[in-house]
Formats: sequence, structure tokens, C-alpha cells
Amino acid sequence: MQFKTRTHTCGELRESNIGESVVLNGWVDTRRDLGGLTFIEIRDRYGVTQIVFEPQFNEEAHNLAKDLRSEFVISVEGIVRKRPEGTEHSVYPTGNIDVMVNKLIVLNEAKTPPFQIKADLDTSEDLRLKYRFLDLRRPNLQNNLMMRHKLAQTARQYFDENSFMEIETPVLMKSTPEGARDFLVPSRIHRGKFYALPQSPQTYKQILMVSGFDRYFQIVKCFRDEDLRADRQPEFTQIDLEMSFIDQDDIMGIVEGFMKRAYKEIWKKDLELPLLRLTYATAMEKYGSDKPDLRFGLEMKTLNHVFQNTAFKVFQDQVQKKGIITGMVAPGCGDYTRNQLDGLTDFAKKAGAGGLIWMRVKEDGLEAPIAKFLTPDELKNIVSELDAKTGDLVFILTGPKDKTLSIMGTLRLEMARRLELIKKDAPPKLLWVTDFPLFEWDEETKRYYAMHHMFTSPNHDDIPLLDTDIASVKARAYDLVLNGSEVGGGSIRIHDSALQSKIFKTLGITDEEAEYRFGFLTNAFKYGAPPHGGFAFGFDRLVMIFAGENSIREVMAFPKTASGISLMDEAPSTVDETQLRELHIKIR
Amino acid sequence: MQFKTRTHTCGELRESNIGESVVLNGWVDTRRDLGGLTFIEIRDRYGVTQIVFEPQFNEEAHNLAKDLRSEFVISVEGIVRKRPEGTEHSVYPTGNIDVMVNKLIVLNEAKTPPFQIKADLDTSEDLRLKYRFLDLRRPNLQNNLMMRHKLAQTARQYFDENSFMEIETPVLMKSTPEGARDFLVPSRIHRGKFYALPQSPQTYKQILMVSGFDRYFQIVKCFRDEDLRADRQPEFTQIDLEMSFIDQDDIMGIVEGFMKRAYKEIWKKDLELPLLRLTYATAMEKYGSDKPDLRFGLEMKTLNHVFQNTAFKVFQDQVQKKGIITGMVAPGCGDYTRNQLDGLTDFAKKAGAGGLIWMRVKEDGLEAPIAKFLTPDELKNIVSELDAKTGDLVFILTGPKDKTLSIMGTLRLEMARRLELIKKDAPPKLLWVTDFPLFEWDEETKRYYAMHHMFTSPNHDDIPLLDTDIASVKARAYDLVLNGSEVGGGSIRIHDSALQSKIFKTLGITDEEAEYRFGFLTNAFKYGAPPHGGFAFGFDRLVMIFAGENSIREVMAFPKTASGISLMDEAPSTVDETQLRELHIKIR
Repeated sequence: MQFKTRTHTCGELRESNIGESVVLNGWVDTRRDLGGLTFIEIRDRYGVTQIVFEPQFNEEAHNLAKDLRSEFVISVEGIVRKRPEGTEHSVYPTGNIDVMVNKLIVLNEAKTPPFQIKADLDTSEDLRLKYRFLDLRRPNLQNNLMMRHKLAQTARQYFDENSFMEIETPVLMKSTPEGARDFLVPSRIHRGKFYALPQSPQTYKQILMVSGFDRYFQIVKCFRDEDLRADRQPEFTQIDLEMSFIDQDDIMGIVEGFMKRAYKEIWKKDLELPLLRLTYATAMEKYGSDKPDLRFGLEMKTLNHVFQNTAFKVFQDQVQKKGIITGMVAPGCGDYTRNQLDGLTDFAKKAGAGGLIWMRVKEDGLEAPIAKFLTPDELKNIVSELDAKTGDLVFILTGPKDKTLSIMGTLRLEMARRLELIKKDAPPKLLWVTDFPLFEWDEETKRYYAMHHMFTSPNHDDIPLLDTDIASVKARAYDLVLNGSEVGGGSIRIHDSALQSKIFKTLGITDEEAEYRFGFLTNAFKYGAPPHGGFAFGFDRLVMIFAGENSIREVMAFPKTASGISLMDEAPSTVDETQLRELHIKIR
Repeated sequence: MQFKTRTHTCGELRESNIGESVVLNGWVDTRRDLGGLTFIEIRDRYGVTQIVFEPQFNEEAHNLAKDLRSEFVISVEGIVRKRPEGTEHSVYPTGNIDVMVNKLIVLNEAKTPPFQIKADLDTSEDLRLKYRFLDLRRPNLQNNLMMRHKLAQTARQYFDENSFMEIETPVLMKSTPEGARDFLVPSRIHRGKFYALPQSPQTYKQILMVSGFDRYFQIVKCFRDEDLRADRQPEFTQIDLEMSFIDQDDIMGIVEGFMKRAYKEIWKKDLELPLLRLTYATAMEKYGSDKPDLRFGLEMKTLNHVFQNTAFKVFQDQVQKKGIITGMVAPGCGDYTRNQLDGLTDFAKKAGAGGLIWMRVKEDGLEAPIAKFLTPDELKNIVSELDAKTGDLVFILTGPKDKTLSIMGTLRLEMARRLELIKKDAPPKLLWVTDFPLFEWDEETKRYYAMHHMFTSPNHDDIPLLDTDIASVKARAYDLVLNGSEVGGGSIRIHDSALQSKIFKTLGITDEEAEYRFGFLTNAFKYGAPPHGGFAFGFDRLVMIFAGENSIREVMAFPKTASGISLMDEAPSTVDETQLRELHIKIR
């Protein structure tokens, strides 16, 4: 196919080009026939330009243009002219000109697409994913991926400027599962042995600190073979970093600096630093979440002190058991119907609550089914503690602390949704959550797990508690929360092999197992490991929020479905028996 | 561990800092005790600074310093002073100062390393790989990885400036093996199905062109499950790019622009453009290689025309069979002993030759075992055609064309080695090799394979030859060669689904197989595929050459051995039976 390559992109021509002879290459976007003329909008990723086929101007091109259909790929030569008065199109930057075509070459034809190539598309996501090559022509996906590119380059520039080195860590690594499942890769050369794909480059980046690289970063693919929930993908991307000879504030400062840069580049906004920091305990008490959304109020309040001497059995029990009584006001919801209140009670129960206590705030006090069990003072104190106003609705939940706070946190989000408290143009809210517990108890397996990961350092002063009260050991860990989503997290790591062994033991990992799985790391620590710590951004989610999207699939070029299928190429797929034989495996 | 974080790196202090109170963090590099004083060089990735422990200055620190050993991690506070006259050390940028220590904190101790942390190291590579965390502290590896970082950032900046978008393509993709074996990843959710790790993002980047992204690049990990040769790794990194609406010159121009930038950034050299272009045919005839090393001469010359009417049977045969007779001069080697010549004959035989014809150039003509079979004119013409001088040695090889030229090419490299023709400071030689054959014949499997890959476009004018003489179809393919290594290659792709189907058929791929393996791509081509083409750099090899190293393992943080093992963490490893059960596979 011989054709002239473009002199300009389809987003480039302006009035200053009028009279020039130009070549454009692109796709047929829309077509209109009008009074013997054919108007076509030709599109590429830079924009759209109107081209005109006029029989008097060039008959051959005009005749050829008759066959043009949507999504044909064409090359045109023509002359830029000012559009006739009244036909300008101010939406496009190219809207004041068009191109009179004197030569048309069809570079490729196109079948009729299964959906239109336009921003607002009402079709199933499955169809979009199957024809991802067409879906990706839509302006919103093009913009999202351009923004993703920009954010990645911004990150690289920023970390490079701050003396970070990008170092590639292996994709084929050792299987050390903890928490999520590893994806495995059978070895052909070593029968019965497997590589694993990294859940994160955690161990390698710590090794790089032992090696003295000091400031490492990487934008890197990670893999988790989990049952996929709505917003998870089997492969995802992290901006991963690690620093030596630092404390927590140094890392938080570097991360904040990046976010300031990103706000400026992407949102054209100034981010004020330093960011708000909430401890995990405060975030849970006030927002029922370790990733609180602060774009709206609806603060929760702990009411235990109000019921210190209550006669109401339900509250009395929790006060004694060191459970929690937490309250929240839904402003102006005092007129909710019984039906609405039942709905919210169901919502709370689905979230795990035994029940939901509600109270209508009236001129003369609280109206509620449980009011009769409480003293007038208690009722008065509820109102004053929660700063509830006439016409408001009060929710109270009680039970084991973290679980109950979480449920109220879920209800808080639900009420924000119902009351439309998050405006589309609400300023983004970015904050730190700090001082996480080092361990969390798992009811199902009846054991403690590392809340962040096993390499997280306990607070220095809490180390003695490892032997006496491990639930209250705090971690030197910190999460970055944007608009109620965790966009990243990190910690100061253990750099002492004895302390690391103690943590393994606390987690019920035997010496042999620890040696087999992490021996290379604890061994490395014996040869001069510096104090170090790091951070990792969930890059897909960060891009998603910057793009204002609700799904990470909208900011990935080729995402998979919830069951891990690529609908476009139908991976995973069956493979030849000979391939399996070479890998020494068979299917069972 | 409470410690002060550094005020300066270990490479930062100068005479202008004299008198300042500073904090340094780093590793104990060397230690000298002298007249009651202890001198230590403290090291980090930025450099080395001498610190001094003097009992009169600070007795406590001096006492503590007694226990310091190599590779201990320390934090010191002290005062910068001018070194006493005569003790300056001009090799280090910090050599005019040292730091009088008044406080020492040992951040971590270190066992004695199994080898010294220094540039010149005489130990086995296996030991270095096992203790890679220590090996990586050595200045050469630190410099190599810093350079790799710099080259990667340079690439990203360059391609970003040229409107390329970095778009991440999937690591978990569909298995479409051709040539090398895929690494497979069993699916847990879909029993009996497998993902494959990409051998390259080829199909995805072509899809991105169909989607209109126009200019794509990515620095990306690729995977090949091959039997590893010396300089291969199961995972390696490519700088991958693809462009639409372009011709071959556009792509070559973009690639040349990057190389010019890289020369400047890394080597501080100006690269003159445009680069030399050799066709595959010329490169083979003159250098016996499709990746010729032009840092030295030793050009080969085809002598068929000299022997057009020869009576010498061996040459006569090849002239008739359209084989080749190729000659090369080894300057000044006319005095090679019979022993040396036998050695070279063996060398040629090992490379696949039937034998090696040699001739000594004397004042009065050629002295050679085969001289008696040739006419005086033929002998004279050999000398004049090859421009051989008295005292030179002439080699002649004859046989099937490409094979024979390759063997002479191997001999050419061997002679360059023996004659030390490549000086250490020889200017690097970068060139293009173009006009490759589209297909190459494989003797073993008795079929044609795509020389580059199946998506490479034939020369437009050669398309009719696909039906008549496929061996002579040329590809729109081009390789970039630096100092005799292929550092990258690319091609204009087929963007027409009918032509693509024809190529599949030519390669013996049935319609069903093509549909199953590449249906998504050929299908995408039916919806408006633009003309496009691309290129991929072998990033590891490029960095290796820029670093002046002989192995890509010297420019990768965590390479694997020739049998694919990571000696540091012992991947691949055995995994739990439960993991295999979940993946529906068992070992056989």
C-alpha cells in the first residue's frame, strides 16, 4: 500500500493553516451527505477534522468517497479552507476550518462495528471487552490511558529527581504465599519445581536496601490469584518504593511530594501539605473505616461514657466487656418512615450487626423504641453528645469494638449515598491513616495475621508487648487514603534478623518454614542491613480516582473479567498435551 | 533503634563543609588503626568518606569503634575538618576532608562477607549470585544499575517527548507459541486452562494500533522458556515501540534519534546520523553475518566471477550450483605455521565447513596446496580481487551460499580476536541491516519459518512471489546492530487480514489453528487497521554494551543461572500439594 504519510494530525489544523496543502491519515468518524457534497469527520487520537468532498473540486475523490463507511482507514490530500460562515463548530479546536479533498486513498476497509465509537455508550461491558480494540477507540478510554501515561511519567520524573533508582526485580520468583495465593509457573528444566509471580517485589526491594541502593522505585506488575471481587484484577500495577536511613516522616514526605506533583499535573490543583494524619484508632472511631472518606461529615461518636452506669442491659454488657456503643446523626432524616428505617436495619444486619438502634430527634426529646429503657439524662446526653438537632435521626450500634465501628462506617457511607452528600465537584480529600495494629485476629482460622505484612516493624516501645499483649502492638505502618479509597500503604521494615524471627514465631511460622521461605532475606539481614522502609501505590486505583472512574477496568488497556478471562483473546486457553508433557505436569 | 538520619551522603562533603557538624549513615568499608587513632572509610552508593576516631576528641566513640568490622552499618556524628597535609586522597571527591567523630551508633552488625566488596573480584559467579545482596554492593554493579536506570529514564523521556504513550500490556496472556516455548501459568478458576507469559507484546501492540493509539512504547518484561545459552535469561526486558501511518524510514528515524540521545547521555559522544544501512545480502557477503561488527575491516569478497570457467572441480561445482566462493585476507599472517593453519582449519570445520583453503601471499605469487589446480590467471586474480599484499594470508571457503558466508563470518571474528583488531577504546559502530528474507528454511523440520515473525510485511513488490518463489521474498524488516550485536529489530507489519491469512498458510498454519491462536488479531484487522510498524530494543543487551560488560547478568539486579535458577532465593522451588490441587494439576 503506497500512501503519503500525514503532514498533520487530525487535531492540529487551525485558521493559520488556511490555504495549505495537507495530508491527513485517520478513521472515518461521521459522514453527512448534503446537497451533492460529502462531509466526513476524520479522526485520530489527537482529534477530529472535517474533510469535504465536492464534485466540482475533485470529481474522482468525490466518487470514491461514496463508498466510505464508519471506521474505514483513509489518507486524504487537500487544501485547508475557512469554513463557510455559520458552519463553524466551536466544540472542536479544528472547528473553524475544513479540508477540501483532492485525493483519497482507502488504506483499509472496516466491517460495521458492533457498537458506536463514542463516549456515551449503552452496551454490555462484556461486548466492550470482546471488541476491546474498538472500545479503546472511544474518547473516554483514550483519555484515560493518556492520563495514565502522564501520571506514570510524572512519577518517574519525580522519583528520578529525588535520587530514586528504578531497578527491575524478577517476575519469575520463589513462591512464598501468605494471605493471597501465588500464580505458579512450572519449570521445564527442573521437574516438580515452580516459579511464582510476585504478589509484590517486597523481599527484593528489601534486599536492594541491604545492597545499599538507598532509594529504589519501580512501576511494576504484581499478581494475586484471588477470587476476584468487583474491583480486582489478577494482575495489577504498583508504584513501589523503598528508602534506607530514614524514618516514617521521610517516607511520608516523599509520598506527599509526589501527590502534590500529581494533583498539579493531572487536576491542575494545589495540594496543601502536610496532609492530615489520623491514627487508625481515631479513623475507626470517627469514620468506622481505616480508609475514611472525608468529603462529607457524618462523624461517628463513641458513647460508652454516657452509659457508664446504665441500667439498659444491652449497653451495660458492652460497657463491661469493653465493647463499644457508637452513635451517628443522619441530619434531617427524622421523618424517615418505618419502612425506610426497616430498610436501614436490614442494611446494618447484612453488614453484620445484630440490630440497629434508631431515634427520631423531636422538639421534646428522642422518640425511639428503646427510649423507655433509658433514663431522661441518658437520652439528653445522647442528643448533646451527638449534637443532634430537631428533625435529625440518630443511629446507635453496640457490640465488639472494631466490628461494630466498621458496620457504622458502612452505614455512614450508605447514608452519604442516600443523602447525596458527595457532590460531583467536591474537592478531593487526601489523608494519612497511621499507627495500625501490627496484627489482626482472624476468627475463622483462630490466629493472628500481619495486618500489613510480616516485614513491618512494630513501634519501638511496643516490642516488649510481643510477649504479653500482641493485640495492642502498634505497627510503624501508614496508609494513604484518597476519597475513601486506600491508594497506597507502607511501613518501616524490620531490619534486625532476630526481631524478624520473633515475628515469624508470633505468626506461627516454624523456624524451618521461615528458613525455607524467607531464609535468603533473614540471611541477608545478617550482613549489614540498614534501617529502611517503603511504600507502594496501587497505581490502577490511583489512576481510576484521578480519571473520575468507578472501575479500574476503565483505566487498563486490556483488563480481565471477574473470573480472570480476557474476552478479546480468550485467555486462559487450553494448550497442547506436548507442552504439558515438557513441563512434567498433567491436569487432574 | 533511634538514630539521626544523615545530613549528607558519603559522597557529598567537600572543603566548603569544613567546620560543619554532620551526620553520616553507611557501611564500614575499610579500617586502619594508626598510632592510637582509628580511620574508617564509610560507604554508601554515593561515595566514600574517611571518618576518624581519636581518643582525645571523643573517648567513648573511639572505644566503641574498636568493635567495628567490615560491612557494619553505622551512623556517626562529627565535625568536618581539612585532612592533615600529605594525607589527602585525590582519588575520592571527598579526599581533602575527613570527619572527626564525636558520636557513633552501630545500626546493625555484619557477619564476615564470603568475598570482599570491591570492584576487582576473583571469585566464582555462583558464589556472587548466591550472595547477590553483597555482590550488588560492589561499585561496578552499582554503576551498571545506575546506568541502566539512566538509560531507561532517557528512553522514557525521549519517547514521551515524541508523543509516544506508554501503555501496559498483559503479562497473563494467551499461549500462542511459535519458535520459542511459552512459560505457562495454570488457571485455578478454569480447570485445564493456562495463561502464557508474553514472549513479546507483539499482538497487543498491533491491537493498540488498530485502536488508534498511533505511537506506543513500553519498557517491558518478556519471557522465553528456551534452553538457556550463555547470554540468555528466561526473563528479559525490551524497549518496545509501534507506530501507525508511517513507513520504514519514520521508524528508523525515531530509533536513530533515541540512539543519538543515548550516546550523548551515557557515552558523552555525538552520534552522526543517518546511520549506515547495509542490506542483509551485502552484510552477508562482506561480513558473513546479519549483525556485522564494523569496528575492524577484514572484509570478505565473493570470488565466483574469478572462477566462472575454472577447471578446478570444487569451485566449478559451486559456480554451477549457485553456491559461493568467498575469500578473505588476514593481513600479515603469511608466516602462520602449519600448526596454526591446522588450528584454523579445525576452527572452520567446527563452524560447519568441509575444509579451509589457505594461501600464503609471496613476492612471486600464491603458495598454497591447491595452487596447482588453478591457472596462473586465476591465482593472479585472487590476489588482485582481494587486494592481498605480500606477507598476507588468504582464506577461501566454498559451499552453499548463506551457510558458507556465515562460516567465513565466524572466521572473520576469530581472526579479529587473534589479531587484536578491536581496541578497547575503539569507537562504537552502529548500523542498520535491512531487506531481510521474509522466510528462512529449516533443514531439521523441512519447512520455512518467518525470519522475524509472522506479522512482518513482505516488500510490496514481492507479494506475487509468495506463490512462486518464497525464498526470495524480502521483508520490510530492519535490525539495529551495535559492535556486532543485534540490539534491536523491527518491521512494517501486515495490516491486511487477507495477506496475513496468506502468510499463515505459507507457514503451514491451518485456518483453524490460525483462528484459534490469532483470530482476535486478524478479526481486529477487519475493523479498520492502519498501516503500522514497530521496533523492539533488547534492553539488557543494550545496557550491557553501553556498560562495556560481556554478560547481561552484569547489568541485571537478580539474574538467573544458565539453568534458570536464582541462586539467592533458590527459585524455582517445590510447592505445597494443596497449591497444586487448587490449580488442578499434578506432577508427572
